[in-house]
Amino acid sequence: MKTERILLDHGSGGKISHRLVADTMLPIFDNAILARLDDGAVLDIDGRRLAFSTDTYTVDPIFFPGGNIGDLAVNGTVNDLAMCGATPLFLSVALIIEEGFAMSDLDRVLRAMRHAALEAGVQIVTGDTKVVPKGAVDKIFINTSGVGTIPARVDVSGHHARLGDRILLSGSIADHGVTVLIQREGLSFDAPIESDSASLNRLVDAMLASGGEIHTLRDPTRGGLGTTLNEIALQSGVGMSIEQERIPIKDAVAGVCELLGFDPMYVANEGKLIAIVAPQTAPQILTAMKNDPHGREACIIGEVVAEHPGTVFLKTPIGGSRILDMLTGEQLPRIC
Amino acid sequence: MKTERILLDHGSGGKISHRLVADTMLPIFDNAILARLDDGAVLDIDGRRLAFSTDTYTVDPIFFPGGNIGDLAVNGTVNDLAMCGATPLFLSVALIIEEGFAMSDLDRVLRAMRHAALEAGVQIVTGDTKVVPKGAVDKIFINTSGVGTIPARVDVSGHHARLGDRILLSGSIADHGVTVLIQREGLSFDAPIESDSASLNRLVDAMLASGGEIHTLRDPTRGGLGTTLNEIALQSGVGMSIEQERIPIKDAVAGVCELLGFDPMYVANEGKLIAIVAPQTAPQILTAMKNDPHGREACIIGEVVAEHPGTVFLKTPIGGSRILDMLTGEQLPRIC
Repeated sequence: MKTERILLDHGSGGKISHRLVADTMLPIFDNAILARLDDGAVLDIDGRRLAFSTDTYTVDPIFFPGGNIGDLAVNGTVNDLAMCGATPLFLSVALIIEEGFAMSDLDRVLRAMRHAALEAGVQIVTGDTKVVPKGAVDKIFINTSGVGTIPARVDVSGHHARLGDRILLSGSIADHGVTVLIQREGLSFDAPIESDSASLNRLVDAMLASGGEIHTLRDPTRGGLGTTLNEIALQSGVGMSIEQERIPIKDAVAGVCELLGFDPMYVANEGKLIAIVAPQTAPQILTAMKNDPHGREACIIGEVVAEHPGTVFLKTPIGGSRILDMLTGEQLPRIC
Repeated sequence: MKTERILLDHGSGGKISHRLVADTMLPIFDNAILARLDDGAVLDIDGRRLAFSTDTYTVDPIFFPGGNIGDLAVNGTVNDLAMCGATPLFLSVALIIEEGFAMSDLDRVLRAMRHAALEAGVQIVTGDTKVVPKGAVDKIFINTSGVGTIPARVDVSGHHARLGDRILLSGSIADHGVTVLIQREGLSFDAPIESDSASLNRLVDAMLASGGEIHTLRDPTRGGLGTTLNEIALQSGVGMSIEQERIPIKDAVAGVCELLGFDPMYVANEGKLIAIVAPQTAPQILTAMKNDPHGREACIIGEVVAEHPGTVFLKTPIGGSRILDMLTGEQLPRIC
């Protein structure tokens, strides 16, 4: 579908976003590094491989259980670098603030960024602050970009999934998206539901140190697990078979999704990763994950198959199987 | 002045912006690299020096004579890297687009980015697109971040201005700010006035290749020439003496400033640089500048003096002298 105007769907992270990038942006910014479309770019600078990534955070509301836009912005870019197999080192922070924004809220956001940066072991080394007149932006948007180094032996990419590989997931899905949704709608539930916003670079370090053979790392943020698996299936030209029963989801989160008609497979996560790994080394990688605070619930959710390249199949608990497509529309704008 | 809410002045690039950074941000993001407050951060990665910079562009209107928000965003970050003495190599682009934005306008903006990137010799290697509901952002904001390498012999910084150094300016001031102002106010003038939006990395290459001793490079964007000189005077702990008559300004631009009550010393430039250089090598650097298309009008506008460290003095044409302070309020929000 070609449209004359930008739709919310163009920012969903799903199918229409991908088409905007593929049809409009890639032909204009024509280069091989961008065309790989991994979570960050891999740069070669005098033979040293660096990862470089950027993301803007527009989440509404800016404060929510489990975090705020500040730690989300730090964790998000730290994770994008980690998903390139890089050690995140340096972050930039660019703030766009609406005139009249409370100084105390700014302080809270900045302190959350500081805390997240300390946790992840990265330094915020450069920044920019723009203030725009009331109404020109909604409260505060934050861009973070980051730079990290890729160890010599590491080579992970969405293009590297291979037949027979196991597909690992680090924990429960849909926590972040459901938390933001509940806040936005002013709903309240007995069960504590909070965002999983967290930096995953230590988890990735542990996985790499396990000596296992990791082909792909990706954090299923916008578009959720379903969209991210589809991206990898397309990039690597492989099929995937996922068992629905194995995907961890908290009861309360599943309940909210059912109540409000959201498919948790497409709801954003901000502290989870997918790893696609060589089958013989899956057990050792899984053990390493389970030993990390952010991977305790890690599990194998499926495998890479030969059938139907570019397609993800979901095996349902009753023994059926259906195509798990990429997200088509926008479920939840401003989720991150 | 401590306020409870963010004011437009906090984004002016002037005195109040500086105080926000110094009082609120530096203590929170406490590290030596950030604390230098140059146009970009200088990173040491395994002994290789890299420059890393970020900037968000919120200019209103997004299209103006001489450019649009797209080339402005590319040139701005290219220039921030060049002002670190770096060779700009890689850029990220993060778009925040308002729902309903015309696809044809997006195409025009992206093509301007491509053109500017080709001119500067940089690659756009990674990106992010967020679409927010109508009213959550005004049309389109663009963040660019960039990475470049710093040649071994180069060491420029706002902290390196020395007594006796000559202060060079690459060309006429206030073109960008006045152009945007005219567009915004819907004014029309006979004389053609257009933005000076341009990448300056080739000019910097030529200056470095001249063999001259360059201590400081800085592009006087938000806050204009007056604010930028003050920043350097403070960072280096030196005084400056500037001769007003030597500062190039186009007649039409000076006329608009007079008409509308703007001091051109504080109006933004997007294709000009200040260089502070060792006096004995000033002539060879000036020659190199004049041979570059973006430095044809380059001239020496003053020198670094011992008197009144941290203060800039402006010698007026009638022989007087006044303090040229940093911009205090916000003259023109959303100028870049």
